[in-house]
This record gives sequence, C-alpha cells and structure tokens, in this order.
Amino acid sequence: MKIIQVDEQVSLRRDPDSGNEKIQAIVDEIIAEVRKDGDEALRAYTKKLDGAALDALFVSEKERAQAYESMDTRTVDAIRQAIANIRDFHERQRSESWMTTKENGTILGQQITPLDAVGVYVPGGKAAYPSTILMDVIPAQVANVGRIVMASPPDESGLLHPAVLVAASELGVETILKAGGAQAVAALAYGTDSVQAVDKIVGPGNSFVALAKRAVFGQVDIDMIAGPSEIVVLADDSARPDYVAADLLSQAEHEERATAIVVTPSKALAEKVSAEVERQLEDLPRAAIAREALDTFGAIYLSADLNEAVDVVNSLAPEHVEVLCSQPFQYLGKIRHAGAIFLGENSAESVGDYFAGPNHVLPTNGTARFSSPLTVDDFLKKSSIIHYSEEALAQNSEMIASLARVEGFEAHARAVEIRKKKDVR
Amino acid sequence: MKIIQVDEQVSLRRDPDSGNEKIQAIVDEIIAEVRKDGDEALRAYTKKLDGAALDALFVSEKERAQAYESMDTRTVDAIRQAIANIRDFHERQRSESWMTTKENGTILGQQITPLDAVGVYVPGGKAAYPSTILMDVIPAQVANVGRIVMASPPDESGLLHPAVLVAASELGVETILKAGGAQAVAALAYGTDSVQAVDKIVGPGNSFVALAKRAVFGQVDIDMIAGPSEIVVLADDSARPDYVAADLLSQAEHEERATAIVVTPSKALAEKVSAEVERQLEDLPRAAIAREALDTFGAIYLSADLNEAVDVVNSLAPEHVEVLCSQPFQYLGKIRHAGAIFLGENSAESVGDYFAGPNHVLPTNGTARFSSPLTVDDFLKKSSIIHYSEEALAQNSEMIASLARVEGFEAHARAVEIRKKKDVR
Repeated sequence: MKIIQVDEQVSLRRDPDSGNEKIQAIVDEIIAEVRKDGDEALRAYTKKLDGAALDALFVSEKERAQAYESMDTRTVDAIRQAIANIRDFHERQRSESWMTTKENGTILGQQITPLDAVGVYVPGGKAAYPSTILMDVIPAQVANVGRIVMASPPDESGLLHPAVLVAASELGVETILKAGGAQAVAALAYGTDSVQAVDKIVGPGNSFVALAKRAVFGQVDIDMIAGPSEIVVLADDSARPDYVAADLLSQAEHEERATAIVVTPSKALAEKVSAEVERQLEDLPRAAIAREALDTFGAIYLSADLNEAVDVVNSLAPEHVEVLCSQPFQYLGKIRHAGAIFLGENSAESVGDYFAGPNHVLPTNGTARFSSPLTVDDFLKKSSIIHYSEEALAQNSEMIASLARVEGFEAHARAVEIRKKKDVR
Repeated sequence: MKIIQVDEQVSLRRDPDSGNEKIQAIVDEIIAEVRKDGDEALRAYTKKLDGAALDALFVSEKERAQAYESMDTRTVDAIRQAIANIRDFHERQRSESWMTTKENGTILGQQITPLDAVGVYVPGGKAAYPSTILMDVIPAQVANVGRIVMASPPDESGLLHPAVLVAASELGVETILKAGGAQAVAALAYGTDSVQAVDKIVGPGNSFVALAKRAVFGQVDIDMIAGPSEIVVLADDSARPDYVAADLLSQAEHEERATAIVVTPSKALAEKVSAEVERQLEDLPRAAIAREALDTFGAIYLSADLNEAVDVVNSLAPEHVEVLCSQPFQYLGKIRHAGAIFLGENSAESVGDYFAGPNHVLPTNGTARFSSPLTVDDFLKKSSIIHYSEEALAQNSEMIASLARVEGFEAHARAVEIRKKKDVR
C-alpha cells in the first residue's frame, strides 16, 4: 500500500454523477411502462432482464420452506442472534410523542407516527445479502410501520436465494415481490394491480435501482443513495498490524471502488501494515478485487501526531472508522464526522456489519458531515401540535398580528383578530 | 367556493416537475461560474440580477443599526417574544448521545454531533419574511451548529430589508452575505475566497434557488424543496363559519397556487363558509391572489360523517390541518399524516406561522406521509458506537464469521478470526 505524508487537504474522492444518461433513459422508460401497464410490464421486464417467466409474482410458502431445508442450522441460529441484537439496539432509538402545557391553556407538542407502508429493495444476483434485509427491515418494524413489502429479482428459474428467504421469514416479512431493478422500484412507488404502493423505498441496488429511486423521490421517500464502502483506521503504535491489515482487506474485498485507509503517526506501523496486507492477500478468495481497491483508493497516511490523525478522519468523514489506539475512548468525542465508530482492537468492522446491533446502512462519500446511519426515525414522522386557548390567544393576538403585517399578510392578521369577536356569528 | 361530495379518491395535486429545463440550464451555468470565479462571479451576478453594485459582500454593523431605527418597537418586541417561544419549543427537541453496556464488555451507542456549518437562505424582493429567519436559524442554534451563514439578495441600493436585518441581529447571526439566487447557493455549497463553504443549506426561495439546491445536494445537504402552502380545515357543526373563512383566506393570500380546503359533514356549515369567504374577500388587500387560489385549488368537501372527514385529511396529508370541532383532541390520534395540527377554534394557523413555537417549515404536496417539520434533528447527525471486548468477540466470532461466509465475504470472516491469535504478531 502507498504510504503518504499527510498534507493539508485529504479528502475522499467524490464520484462525479456522469455517464449515467444512457441508464437514466432506460430507467425512465421502465418506470413509464410499469406505471402504464402495471403487473404486465413487471412480468415482461422480469422475463427480459432476469430471464424468469413467472407464474406468481410473490414468493410462496412452499418456497420459504424449501429455503430452510437448504440452509445449515448454525447459520440460521446466527441470523436469529443477529436479529435479536439489531432489534435490541434499534428499540433504544424509539422516540415518543410529547406535549408541553402552560397555565394559560397553551398546549404544544410533537406527535410521532409511523409510515403507513415501506418497500425494502434487496439486490439479487449470485450473492445474497441477508444482513441487508435485517438492517433495513428491523428499524421499520421497530417504528411500527404498517406494511412492509420486500422486492428482489429472481434467478432464471424464478426463485430467490435461500438466505434471503430465511432472513425475511425470520423477520416475519409476509410479502416478497419477485422483481428487481427499476421495474420493482416503479411498482413500489406507483403500485400495480397486485402491488400496493408504499410511502418510502429503502435498500441498496445497482445503478438502475439507484437512478430509479432518485426518479421516484418525491412521489415516495427514499433512503440515501449509497456510494462505495469506506473504512479509515486510526491507529497508534499499539495497533497490531495483522488486525489492521485484516480490517482493510475486509473493506477492500467488497468491490474495486471500495476505500481502505489507515491514518497513523507511526511509520513503523505503516510499514508493517503494508507488508501484512501483502501477506494476507496471498490466499484471499477475492484478492483481485481487494488488490485493485487498495491500489486505487487505499492509502496509509502518516500524520505528525494523533491529533492531526483525528483531523484527517474528520476531513474524510468516512462511513466506518476504527480506533485502534491504546486508549480508544479518548478519541470518541474528537471524532465529529463518521457513520460508525469502532473502538478498540476487538471491534473489527465485521462485528458491526453483521451482528452487534447498530445499523450497517451508513453515510458514504463524505456525507457523514451531514447524514446519519439508518435509524428508526427514518420510518417515523412528526406532526407539530398547537392548541391555543381563548386566554392564550387574547394575550398574544396583537403580537401575532403585527408580525403578519410586517410580512404583508393582512388575512393572517385578521384570522387572529376575528377571534376577538366572540359574540358575532 | 365549490362544495363537493367526497368521492373515493381525494388527493392534493402533485406539481409535475416540468418546464424547468430552461431555468435549470441557467442555474447550472451560474453554479459553474461561481465555482470558477468565486467572489468575482458573485459580484457580477448580483449586479446583473439584483441591480446592485456591491462594495462589501457582507452586511455591516452600520446597516444593522440603521435597520433598527426604521422598525417600530412593538414589532421588535413581537419578534423577541416569537424568538423566545420558538427557542423554548425547539429546546425540547434536543436529543442526547447514549450508550448501553453489557457485562461481557460490549458497549453500543449513538453519538450525536451538530453540523459544522449551515447556510440559511432568505428570499429578498419587496416583501420581507423575518419569520423564515427565526424558523430556520433557531433549530440550528439549538443544535449547536458551529457556524451559521445567512444569504439574501440585496435591493438595487445594495441593502437588505430592515426586518430581515433585525431578525438576524436578534438571533445573533453574525455573517450575512448579500447575494441571492443560484449564485448564493453555489457560494454556500462550494465556498469562495470570502464565503466559507457550509455542510447544509436550508430556507425557501424561487425556482432558481430550488433548482440550485437540488443541484448542489450531495455536495451539501439541503432541507426539503417546499411546494405551495396548504391548509385543510376539519370542521363539524360547531365550527364558526367566520373563523373557518378567515383561516382559509390566510392560506389563500400566500399565492395563486396555495391550497385551502374544508372537510365537513355539515352541509349547513359548508354553505355558510362559502358565503363568509365572499364577504371577507371584499376588503382584503390581496383579494385577487386569494380568489384565484380558492377558485383553482380551494374546495369544501362534504363527507358522510367525521370519520370519513378524517380519512380525507389523511389522504390529503396536508401541510396544515385545523380541527375546528367541538372535541378537537378526540381527533388528534386519528390524524396520521399532517405537518402541523391546530386544535380548537382559537388555534388559527397564524398562531403557528409566526409565534407559538413549533416550526413553520413543514412538508407540502402530500409528503407529510413520510416527512416531518424542520426540527433540531435536521441540524444534528448520529454516529454509531461499537466496542467489543475480547470476551464479547470470543463469544460471538463464530456466528459473525458464518454470516460473513454466507455472503461470500471471506476477509470479513478472517478479520474476526485473526483476533483469536492473541500471541502472534
């Protein structure tokens, strides 16, 4: 890995939003077709793009049962424990409606209500990502969302991956649409004869899914459009090079565009990590992908001291940061911008990716400067509550009217003044 | 006003996002120019579009002092009371970082941090909207945002409206950029020599501002793109027609595209409201605007009963709903989708627009199905905290590894397994 002295400006690259025009045109056409022809278009695209001629658009009970048969029990048990952990963490995020009252009769507050319906997109293809299902569905369930619909593209025989079906079944997701890509997003956003429209669509996907989500945003809400995954390891002398290297590789194996960075004041560590990465790459199944990611976006930054290293972390605002220092909690309050903070040498990123409880849907591409992990709040919404009594209005109507008139809104002023005329009807 | 029997599908119209291509091209050019030429471009556009040849790009102390001289003290007092109310309400929204621990050494949590810097856009032109400044700045201040920059277009003599300057000064906003439109948005998003870039831009504006905000989204965060304002009055027999009419007009006077709707099972009320609207329109300064809004988007819906009326409110998911019924609190829990809920006959919408405390930046265009008022949370972000001890990892590493391998990520599995080798370096 490259070892680079920290200079003034270190920042994660931003992906230019270019070269998508062709895909956008296709996506727009697919959305238009699904809005026009509904289920028929959904079937046609699933035949054309996924090679599956579907009888039923939804997963059957039989398919779920078969999925369980093909999974080993230890993995099912691990899924169950992960669900328990993730649910426990997200239940702590639940916020409640509240009110405040005054003696003059004023009542103000905030009513919190769940979304009526949410669509969860789950990528298909050869790999299966049950962890994605857990991370997207559980916060919606904790928020008490009324209806959760999952959508995932089937393989050529019209089936979904067993791990996907088992994860969904363990969570009690009843409706699983066998459709993917822009056609699934369109069906969830606008509805068809057999798919009821939802209010928000979450979940990762390829460019077609991402562009379709952007296109339907406004009609429905969406979660973030995730960029390539990122890790930054903040390390001091005490860090073990083999742990650092293993964690960098766990990020780099995701895809060629993944980012894995170390920031450390220790030149000795930097050199050992670089050598250790080479050693661990030797027998890694996805070594080619990981190597390309590290060559393109990987780096070990040498800082003057740990304080400068923390500054680098904050300017990178990474998705994941690991603090592999002898006193990791000392740096927690200094890390202002990060999706998830892993503290100490036993807190490998994998612990959070799959299992610990916090969400693995996190801001990428420097957006941790202003965004947050997926939370229960993302499936709730607030309504302000305002009650003025006759007394409260009488005390304040003059001020309210004068503020309205400064803005030139006479009818606003009169709406409070007319309330003085209690006798007239 | 039209009186219409409720049929199955009642919904607020959605604005098609069309006809903006020309403005978009101009906006894109302005953004590119400001990114290239910085302050110079900012000055050039302010000269060209606002007619002001500026010496200083920022508001001076002297201008602030002059603004106070031209405002009457009662209005300044009203602004001060509104600030106190709005601050009090938003302080109740503040959420705290939290942690949870387990005996095996696991620590999980959520760290909450404010955004580093926020830009608040304030429209210019002949009217001034000090209430907008209060509603956008106060939640950012309560969140402890490090730096708040206001931007507003100057008039031809290079000055801002006194009410704008007084509101900003009362809040202690130190930096006020004299620039508007896409050029101001570009300067806030990308920075210039004299404007430091921010992380989020909030505040209303015309199409240029809205399209510029959309264009810089991703580089920075933005608040919602607000549509025309909306009120729905849910009323029973007990409602006073003159109050209902006054509140409809206070919404309709905003602009020709504003929506003002009544839903009631009472035919008698419907007819009285319709007559009363005509009466009150007679001497309203902005009668022409209000009348056009009511003719185009206004309606009185007659429902079978109050339950059906509530259903209509939920399908409209309006920005504001007033409950003018004899037992207003009875309906609070039934209203699932609304930006702000005004309960009882003394709670005119104006009370909340200017003064009561809750934010007046609210979801429009049916988006209350999935969005919320502007809150302190919009200026905070969360980072997950994960700490596993050696014990916690040992207990769980097998499960974590098996979940990683189901997804085909061997390096993820090895990153936890390598931690077993405590002795090797």
